[in-house]
Amino acid sequence: MTDGTTAAAPDPADVAWIAVDWGTSNLRAWAMGPGDAPLAEAASAAGMGALAPDGFEPALLDLVGDWRAPGRATVVVACGMVGARQGWIEAPYAAVPCVPAGGFARPAVADPRLRVHILPGLRQDRPPDVMRGEETQIAGLIAGAPGFDGVACLPGTHAKWAHVSAGEVVGFASFMTGEVFALLAGASVLRHTVGAEGWSEPDFIEAVDDTLTRPERLAARLFGLRAEGLIAGLAPERARARLSGLLIGAELAAARPWWLGREVALIGAAGPGAAYRAALAHVGVAARSLDAAAMTLAGLAAAHRRLIRERTAAP
Amino acid sequence: MTDGTTAAAPDPADVAWIAVDWGTSNLRAWAMGPGDAPLAEAASAAGMGALAPDGFEPALLDLVGDWRAPGRATVVVACGMVGARQGWIEAPYAAVPCVPAGGFARPAVADPRLRVHILPGLRQDRPPDVMRGEETQIAGLIAGAPGFDGVACLPGTHAKWAHVSAGEVVGFASFMTGEVFALLAGASVLRHTVGAEGWSEPDFIEAVDDTLTRPERLAARLFGLRAEGLIAGLAPERARARLSGLLIGAELAAARPWWLGREVALIGAAGPGAAYRAALAHVGVAARSLDAAAMTLAGLAAAHRRLIRERTAAP
Repeated sequence: MTDGTTAAAPDPADVAWIAVDWGTSNLRAWAMGPGDAPLAEAASAAGMGALAPDGFEPALLDLVGDWRAPGRATVVVACGMVGARQGWIEAPYAAVPCVPAGGFARPAVADPRLRVHILPGLRQDRPPDVMRGEETQIAGLIAGAPGFDGVACLPGTHAKWAHVSAGEVVGFASFMTGEVFALLAGASVLRHTVGAEGWSEPDFIEAVDDTLTRPERLAARLFGLRAEGLIAGLAPERARARLSGLLIGAELAAARPWWLGREVALIGAAGPGAAYRAALAHVGVAARSLDAAAMTLAGLAAAHRRLIRERTAAP
Repeated sequence: MTDGTTAAAPDPADVAWIAVDWGTSNLRAWAMGPGDAPLAEAASAAGMGALAPDGFEPALLDLVGDWRAPGRATVVVACGMVGARQGWIEAPYAAVPCVPAGGFARPAVADPRLRVHILPGLRQDRPPDVMRGEETQIAGLIAGAPGFDGVACLPGTHAKWAHVSAGEVVGFASFMTGEVFALLAGASVLRHTVGAEGWSEPDFIEAVDDTLTRPERLAARLFGLRAEGLIAGLAPERARARLSGLLIGAELAAARPWWLGREVALIGAAGPGAAYRAALAHVGVAARSLDAAAMTLAGLAAAHRRLIRERTAAP
């Protein structure tokens, strides 16, 4: 959706507002035209993790300063870690059940031509959980399918499963599967055995089965990959698929109440999402696949429309 | 056992042989007197991981060259990663069931006053598993308790559970619990929440219960530590104990056939061993606690006695 609509330099007069996805490691922005059509896209490495509080406005202007409309203020709607406590300004978590991406924090800005709105993350008190950024993708899912009643699965460094009903997030659960995979494959003794690329679908599915049916096997199976590499020459791409399968199988075992008998929307179909899709298909779940960037943009656009409505409705 | 018997410089004439524990990161040696009494102890950072094949003999001589007996060759018996494929010389894994530490590899040495013997690790083909170093501690256990019939538990970076019967290792299983704890506590998002020290025994036991009874909860509980730190101020020492408990509980769930109804010898009672001891006591297992260094030395001494017998029996 976004990649086909980019252009290097939009006419600032056409820019209705600016959409921003501001994570820990990256800053990504879209110039949005009338009808919420993206006119241009830009990205930089000025993520939240690299910035002090007074560095956010300059980083934003560096990237999108040329997009500011002449003669009027430009509205910016941003989601992600930019709203964390250590970000630009804290956009406090909203407690579920609630509409996702349903509020704003307003940082002070020096430039009178900017009006910045930062979306809050979601908080769940029992059991404790948080998300920041994914709620906007879920808002995008809801914007495109207002009647959706089911579960959104968002693979990633910290995968999320969220129960969505009547336009609200009812509850959610997070899994460190992506981060654990990266640490084990790249920084543990398994790095000698697990390839940096390559895949074996039969090994993946067998490993998913293994920990999905008997989750206690996860702890027992990990070192076995190293041992099988040493004494039986386990191929690096097979070890990679097996490690992924063991971890995703364990996640599916823990997340069983989330996907069993539910409609599942898989947000982020590329990369690890493909593995989740295969694992879900193996347990009989035909997930609806959605592009993560498209959902972020749709969620930001929905938040912008609400902002406009609220401003119009104000006395 | 060893710490009270060290001396800076033994009389070389008293040194009957030299015991060596040569791991990936460290080299540790004992000058052994008559009756297998340690006369002196020395250690360096010249671990296997830091040495090229031609670096082992100089590293050994640097540490224990002054201990060589005058006028005769000195026998060295070594265990650990020094016998790995990337070590001094490969001491091929012996396949279980077998007597642990029951063979030698002999690297070529330039110094005519050294006779070096390296103990092999153990290999299990189904399911694939390996150990290198721990087999010598198990040999030490057997030397001190020849009739032991039960399970040796060796906590550590890669924890081992070994079934010992009739003086042999029958089978074993490895768990990456120690390495996973270190990676999650030090290199994952949990590093912001998990303290570098401190402890809470009630939190530890509750977490052990959690994953021991429902091992699929491991995947679900990890990110929850971070979330509870963010939204409910979970104390760093409580988070540390909980992370340890979740991982050890998952290991105990996977290792249930190893400890249920068996006599358990816990080798390595300090550090993580104390947590294992508490977790095992919680499930009704009163483990016999043994010092890891003492077991290594006892295993090396048993291997040396066998070497002497074999030499005496040779035609």
